[in-house]
Amino acid sequence: MRLSPDYYADVHSSLRDALDQDGLDGFLATAPSDVAYLAGFFYAVTERPVYLWFPRDGRPLCVVPKLDEEYAALQRIEADVVTYAEFPGVDPAEAVLAREIGRAGRPAARIGISGGLSLAGHRALTEALGSAGLRTSSVVSNLRLTKHPEELAWHRQAAGICDEMLAAGRALIEDALRAGRPLPSEGDLARHVIGYGSDAMYQRYDHVIYTTKLAGGLVHAGPNSANPHGLPSRRRLEIGDTVILSLGAAVGSRFVESERTFVIGEPSADQRRYFAVAAEAQEVGTAGLRAGRTCAEVNRECLDVIRGHGLGEHIRHRQGHGIGVQQHEPPWVEDGDDTVLRAGMLLSSEPGVYVPGHGGYRISDTVLVTDAGPERLTSYPRGLEENVIAP
Amino acid sequence: MRLSPDYYADVHSSLRDALDQDGLDGFLATAPSDVAYLAGFFYAVTERPVYLWFPRDGRPLCVVPKLDEEYAALQRIEADVVTYAEFPGVDPAEAVLAREIGRAGRPAARIGISGGLSLAGHRALTEALGSAGLRTSSVVSNLRLTKHPEELAWHRQAAGICDEMLAAGRALIEDALRAGRPLPSEGDLARHVIGYGSDAMYQRYDHVIYTTKLAGGLVHAGPNSANPHGLPSRRRLEIGDTVILSLGAAVGSRFVESERTFVIGEPSADQRRYFAVAAEAQEVGTAGLRAGRTCAEVNRECLDVIRGHGLGEHIRHRQGHGIGVQQHEPPWVEDGDDTVLRAGMLLSSEPGVYVPGHGGYRISDTVLVTDAGPERLTSYPRGLEENVIAP
Repeated sequence: MRLSPDYYADVHSSLRDALDQDGLDGFLATAPSDVAYLAGFFYAVTERPVYLWFPRDGRPLCVVPKLDEEYAALQRIEADVVTYAEFPGVDPAEAVLAREIGRAGRPAARIGISGGLSLAGHRALTEALGSAGLRTSSVVSNLRLTKHPEELAWHRQAAGICDEMLAAGRALIEDALRAGRPLPSEGDLARHVIGYGSDAMYQRYDHVIYTTKLAGGLVHAGPNSANPHGLPSRRRLEIGDTVILSLGAAVGSRFVESERTFVIGEPSADQRRYFAVAAEAQEVGTAGLRAGRTCAEVNRECLDVIRGHGLGEHIRHRQGHGIGVQQHEPPWVEDGDDTVLRAGMLLSSEPGVYVPGHGGYRISDTVLVTDAGPERLTSYPRGLEENVIAP
Repeated sequence: MRLSPDYYADVHSSLRDALDQDGLDGFLATAPSDVAYLAGFFYAVTERPVYLWFPRDGRPLCVVPKLDEEYAALQRIEADVVTYAEFPGVDPAEAVLAREIGRAGRPAARIGISGGLSLAGHRALTEALGSAGLRTSSVVSNLRLTKHPEELAWHRQAAGICDEMLAAGRALIEDALRAGRPLPSEGDLARHVIGYGSDAMYQRYDHVIYTTKLAGGLVHAGPNSANPHGLPSRRRLEIGDTVILSLGAAVGSRFVESERTFVIGEPSADQRRYFAVAAEAQEVGTAGLRAGRTCAEVNRECLDVIRGHGLGEHIRHRQGHGIGVQQHEPPWVEDGDDTVLRAGMLLSSEPGVYVPGHGGYRISDTVLVTDAGPERLTSYPRGLEENVIAP
């Protein structure tokens, strides 16, 4: 899992152009996802800061804690590396950074930072960097809005693994039914599919790296599936349950998500109705993800399908969100985000219908905006008939 | 997994006293760990903000996204709940919060916030709250420095599970050796012990909740064990390897960590020497965790053991860190942290010796400071002879 030097050259060149346009002397990346995106450094995130200084001119510099020095070298990251001893320490990361920026002899008066930086981090940097001015800038988050072809190759591989995870989850239920064993619990299922995804990564890739995780999953069944973001429980699945497998996978921290709704046994009239509405909303919403449209427009059209069927009270969330080095990132397919879609953007499309006490219905694909229209990277079957799990 | 109303009453009463002392009208919690600590709300963390408003007078109020409304009710959280529709939305979380604070008729001019709040979050809140002044305050992080007896009961249960995870990891290696099978890879071992810990939680607790995870583990063997924070790889363990199992578990998000170093097969002279130094440093460092001493002093004494044996160049990190609702939290057992230890503080004690190309040696316990001295909550055997895994 390593993107080519060409990828980094392309990204760095685009970032330099953006710095020029914004009149910045450089960008100081402080978010793990920005550091991964710009320099290919992946690390266990703790309170120990990692700073990636990307000057307008010259080579990027990464300030890492001593305990990550050899690990950064092993990853052959696209930046020079300097270390600080430890956090908090007596010679903190910010002091090391300030000396290195000074030593390079490139005056940096206007430094872009991300709005995700903490107030405490901002204070430490302001004290260390003295007269240099820190200003929030979206130069890097703007770049990340569209994906590089090399990134897309990884997203596609992750989509394949995520589809396989869905199949593995379904198989665990079917095997239990067939053998007459008790059905797995939500927690069992979550562990099984996440394990499948992690194993697949280790089998297929030599040097596995990630920012937050390799594979993840929320599994909700029966009444629990009406809570879109609940944590999996120890409730065992039952015949008659609606089941949502909400799965994600990341190759080289390039995420996808794929979510499907299953019914165990013959669906009831209610299950058919709610499923049909969720599926129709997802079709309409996905078809709407076209270059030139705004996120807010597409979201409205998508959720209007649910409202049009008289189920507006069962909406709990937007249509979707951007996806990339992070599982959730801009743009947001929702009211209040007027970002204009363009080719190369990657989004989840996942409207849902949630009926308290009964269950939830959500189908999600990871969708690439192309000049020829929306392309789903995830391809596990979506229809109800295909997703009835027969006892 | 639910702390009693008494726990919350105690914490709320202490927080009110601290607000008085600092002249604050309330505290606005924005970190998931603070929200869990103060109100018992556990949720999947995304870009959707959750705000817990804790006024000097009156009942706490939690602003949650619509998709978590029923989940918050299910958890019977210790706060009133109001919702906002979605992120970013047209009526954002900050606007909802500002209206609710205004409606309560309790003027709030001086609002404490944590230094962990992002610059973007700070801007949104400042705009919404208008004249109310936000100021960073450590009232809540100070409270969290010492653990409540009910929290300690959970930490002790987590310590038991973490010790069992170590045993499960060791057993996986021994079973493979005994059966003549290939040894597991680092990734396999990590999956196995994390799965063991998660299963144990679901078996033992009715409603499993967590902030970041139930159980986690970094597994490093052979040369990889010299990278303290590398991600597990697909390298299979080998006879002759030094193996570090660096495991963590959390009951109700009350974390512990327990880390042990094993050797597969007869230890070499180098392995014996490095192990002995790491073990001695851990003994000395752990014995030093006494009320009245400072973190920096204890750390220095601990790491001086390694330096005294001429292995200073193999130090990669401090002695340890605080542990609580977060896996890592203040205080830091390190240079630059002059916090005075006192009874009720919970800390990791985990000095290490890392020899590039050869391997790493680290033993970690979770240690409670008591009036009678340090008490280790984790109790898996630590010695070399006990942790040789014979082929």
